[in-house]
Amino acid sequence: MVDDPARTTDDDVLAPWRGARARALPDDELVARARAVRVLAFDVDGVCTDGRLYYGPDGCALHAFHARDGLGIVKARDAGLVLAAISGRASKNVAARLGELKVPHIRQGVARKAVELDGLLGELGVLWSACCYVGDDVNDVGCLRRAGLAVAPAGAVFDAIAAAHLVTQRQGGEGVLRELVELILRAQGRWSIDDV
Amino acid sequence: MVDDPARTTDDDVLAPWRGARARALPDDELVARARAVRVLAFDVDGVCTDGRLYYGPDGCALHAFHARDGLGIVKARDAGLVLAAISGRASKNVAARLGELKVPHIRQGVARKAVELDGLLGELGVLWSACCYVGDDVNDVGCLRRAGLAVAPAGAVFDAIAAAHLVTQRQGGEGVLRELVELILRAQGRWSIDDV
Amino acid sequence: MVDDPARTTDDDVLAPWRGARARALPDDELVARARAVRVLAFDVDGVCTDGRLYYGPDGCALHAFHARDGLGIVKARDAGLVLAAISGRASKNVAARLGELKVPHIRQGVARKAVELDGLLGELGVLWSACCYVGDDVNDVGCLRRAGLAVAPAGAVFDAIAAAHLVTQRQGGEGVLRELVELILRAQGRWSIDDV
Amino acid sequence: MVDDPARTTDDDVLAPWRGARARALPDDELVARARAVRVLAFDVDGVCTDGRLYYGPDGCALHAFHARDGLGIVKARDAGLVLAAISGRASKNVAARLGELKVPHIRQGVARKAVELDGLLGELGVLWSACCYVGDDVNDVGCLRRAGLAVAPAGAVFDAIAAAHLVTQRQGGEGVLRELVELILRAQGRWSIDDV
Repeated sequence: MVDDPARTTDDDVLAPWRGARARALPDDELVARARAVRVLAFDVDGVCTDGRLYYGPDGCALHAFHARDGLGIVKARDAGLVLAAISGRASKNVAARLGELKVPHIRQGVARKAVELDGLLGELGVLWSACCYVGDDVNDVGCLRRAGLAVAPAGAVFDAIAAAHLVTQRQGGEGVLRELVELILRAQGRWSIDDV
Repeated sequence: MVDDPARTTDDDVLAPWRGARARALPDDELVARARAVRVLAFDVDGVCTDGRLYYGPDGCALHAFHARDGLGIVKARDAGLVLAAISGRASKNVAARLGELKVPHIRQGVARKAVELDGLLGELGVLWSACCYVGDDVNDVGCLRRAGLAVAPAGAVFDAIAAAHLVTQRQGGEGVLRELVELILRAQGRWSIDDV
Repeated sequence: MVDDPARTTDDDVLAPWRGARARALPDDELVARARAVRVLAFDVDGVCTDGRLYYGPDGCALHAFHARDGLGIVKARDAGLVLAAISGRASKNVAARLGELKVPHIRQGVARKAVELDGLLGELGVLWSACCYVGDDVNDVGCLRRAGLAVAPAGAVFDAIAAAHLVTQRQGGEGVLRELVELILRAQGRWSIDDV
Repeated sequence: MVDDPARTTDDDVLAPWRGARARALPDDELVARARAVRVLAFDVDGVCTDGRLYYGPDGCALHAFHARDGLGIVKARDAGLVLAAISGRASKNVAARLGELKVPHIRQGVARKAVELDGLLGELGVLWSACCYVGDDVNDVGCLRRAGLAVAPAGAVFDAIAAAHLVTQRQGGEGVLRELVELILRAQGRWSIDDV
């Protein structure tokens, strides 16, 4: 999808700098969509991390994940949500972190994310309406437009926010997945607090 | 403790997104509780760090601690406070930092924090009312509910803030322990400034 | 260019602390300048990164780039923009990242940036008016004053902001290049969203 | 200097949480003090860095310095200011960075900073009134109280801010030294912009 230059006004060009708004949903529809979620699929850079790639002389040496997302992923797994990471890049750092957290579906180096996720949902026998997707950039827009619950982290780019139902309170790398797992499990009446 | 789905309203689900408030305390009670503290127990990820876990291809390579917490821990030790770290995760990076600072009690990989801390306080012969506990996530709630002074860092999750008497000005990893040591030692009339 | 001490008032001295303003441009001129861009030249530290240099005992071990700038550079290349990095420092970390992104012109350790970029534009047969330059510090001011579209990241120093036409919404290291590529390609009617 | 517990009120205890204010100076006195500076002495952690200490299993592996401070130090050196780092901790990472920037006086592992700096100023034959000192914590207060121009970074602890003439706009690790060098050199009519 490319803009038609002949029909692009200055206002169109500068729209992202006027601020983006997610598709507004009334509370009851937001909760209903969260209640229906069976698969939580997510982009990695800019969602599980703040997007920073720490480079040494031999390439990308480190990614910074967040401890709270780890706890969120454990709670999601315990509640039976299916987790799937869909990343445009490919990184051993990401494989190390997500493997440690036992994320069952890790797809890296994906050029066409909506095609990839559509295939995975087909394998799982789950409809897009039961899929929550979180992404922060233009290569996530296809998934965001199809997902039953479409989420962008605070600070995501204009096009991702415009395609989302919900913008999280936290920025990427600060516990976006954990915030979302809490929303989904609260909506499903399955959120628990560790009291011991 | 799990919510009953039959009794969960949309407002209950979305409560964390309406904002959390710590249990309000008048100044004199806050100072009185700080004055009684003999043990300072704390979570590590999200308290001593900003929660970030720096992963390389072989797993978590780095944690980012704060220099000011180091100075705070030295002052706490000099004043005779007993320090105890209680972490749900286990990391050699954490052991290296807390060992260097001579924290006497370091418990990592703890699944049930309130049970663990209860045992430690028993060994030390100190009551929960003389224990200050700092934590940022749901697995800290049990300790927060029992501690004489319960503290959550700014930016902690809803359930931790709701269980705390006090939210620090600083976020995790920006000197939370140091801020708290200063509060406790000022309340006890033992805060000192290095003038030389 | 050095200030004349005899003519410096207290207000001159403190001007940077009163706040800096970019050279104001009406929207249509900003878009027209963006439409004319053929070369996107940029400083590295403080633009592609937040300026942090991670030092170990053997020197600078890491630079933190942003994933979104990577996607922006791919889009810029696909659209035929010529990319050029002009850095005052020299670092293998920078070479690794920019090489991976196939930036065709990488000039490091440059003492006189405007002379260097002037030479490069001559080789490319491109006028300064078709060059967008982004920089955050005083050694970028020469390029900023000559470029057709002069840009400083949010949080840049006073002198860089004062020499710029535009201050980006994002700070260095948070996707400044990506924001700028989007502006240029939207102005040229060539911005595309990945929908699959 | 220790508070007398018998005379400590709740308001005294909580004063740091009410907010700190630097010693107010009129503009002309601030500029006059900056004009007199011959030695720029500074703390490292929390001033040249944001205070974060990146620990791996073998101890502190990384410190994050800022590129703009590097440019500031070069300008300070070129203008003939004498630079001195006074750190309470000792780190090879710090030695690597400050050595690369040719800071002539690097004192690490200093327990009593005001004594150390007093000795150095004596060796240099410079009075405290011609010394600018920057520090962020209680072990800097002695130097801050004696220096002709006493500076705390934004976000410094209460006692450091209360002892300072000036709080910088930037936080530690975001270019505090560079901001200060610019203030001093502008006051002395020696600030220059690289135009080529």
